[in-house]
Amino acid sequence: MFLMDSLERLIKALGRLPGIGWRSAERMALRLVMESEKLVPELIAALEDARASLRCCSKCGNITRVDKDPCRLCTDPSRDDSVLCVVEGPSDISLVERTGGYRGRYHALMGKISPMNQKGIEDIRVEALIRRVREEGFKEIILALNSDVESDATASYLRDVLSRLKVRVTRLALGIPAGSGLAYSDSVTLSRAIEGRTEM
Amino acid sequence: MFLMDSLERLIKALGRLPGIGWRSAERMALRLVMESEKLVPELIAALEDARASLRCCSKCGNITRVDKDPCRLCTDPSRDDSVLCVVEGPSDISLVERTGGYRGRYHALMGKISPMNQKGIEDIRVEALIRRVREEGFKEIILALNSDVESDATASYLRDVLSRLKVRVTRLALGIPAGSGLAYSDSVTLSRAIEGRTEM
Repeated sequence: MFLMDSLERLIKALGRLPGIGWRSAERMALRLVMESEKLVPELIAALEDARASLRCCSKCGNITRVDKDPCRLCTDPSRDDSVLCVVEGPSDISLVERTGGYRGRYHALMGKISPMNQKGIEDIRVEALIRRVREEGFKEIILALNSDVESDATASYLRDVLSRLKVRVTRLALGIPAGSGLAYSDSVTLSRAIEGRTEM
Repeated sequence: MFLMDSLERLIKALGRLPGIGWRSAERMALRLVMESEKLVPELIAALEDARASLRCCSKCGNITRVDKDPCRLCTDPSRDDSVLCVVEGPSDISLVERTGGYRGRYHALMGKISPMNQKGIEDIRVEALIRRVREEGFKEIILALNSDVESDATASYLRDVLSRLKVRVTRLALGIPAGSGLAYSDSVTLSRAIEGRTEM
């Protein structure tokens, strides 16, 4: 079409962010140009600030301040040192934290095994996980991964590797979402819920 | 929660863009921090480039290069000077252009009347529209606005104002989307499609 180079460049840079397709990126870019005096300096300042003051925790992978590494969650003495929750990324850590029910430590893999995207074992933080399990003496590793094919493959691989280290490996329950019903669940979810049924 | 100031600032700056809620902004911000060495400089460079080299056309409101104002669509001598298509924003111009069927001129209002968001007549480009209609001698004004309450109110207001200028005012047909059927249309759409039925 009649896109200018600079506009296309901005759309592409925005389109690299997760969950942003071409149409969303275009809408965002047009708004940024329309209100460039206000929105652009604000966003640039926030980006520069974030780059200068935030990083991923060298231990668990969570987002932390550069002057606070290892992060708050890794250093909090009140947390349980016997359980490690393995997640795909930092956003999953904040989701688990929001439940308020988990008080152990975390380890973010920073991805999952994904042959389609040329991501193998060496591209996710598996080696660091094995080292931590060896050195920190966890009693249980909870695999809190998503429930798609690639995450399931990653979980199977981790179970094989971790079970050799004589540690208990668990995964999240699969079942019917709270507040939902049988009619809204697909049959895979429902059969997993039946398999995983509990005493009451 | 345990959000750091810099992270919250970035999430808020991203959340000001259209179509981006808190959860999407958070995902984008976390990815930006996780891959800050690569993504942040790229995005900042694209933003600075866009701010320096793009602006809104002083005539129609479309995005254009700073050294090309009025824009390509306003100055193209092969386009029809008798028809003006009034849209809400620059992204609508590119949508109409993609149809390939319209060869007239454009005027973007840069918004719509919206009492909820404190947007009145003086906040959208109505005065510039009236001046253009007076000076440029259009024979027909097509109101290509959306089909929600605020856009409808804006269209009604424009029809009243423009009809005093002795110019033909039309609006887009309301009807069943191409490739769709009656079963997928809500009853308002269907009744508008019946009202607007055409000979065949």
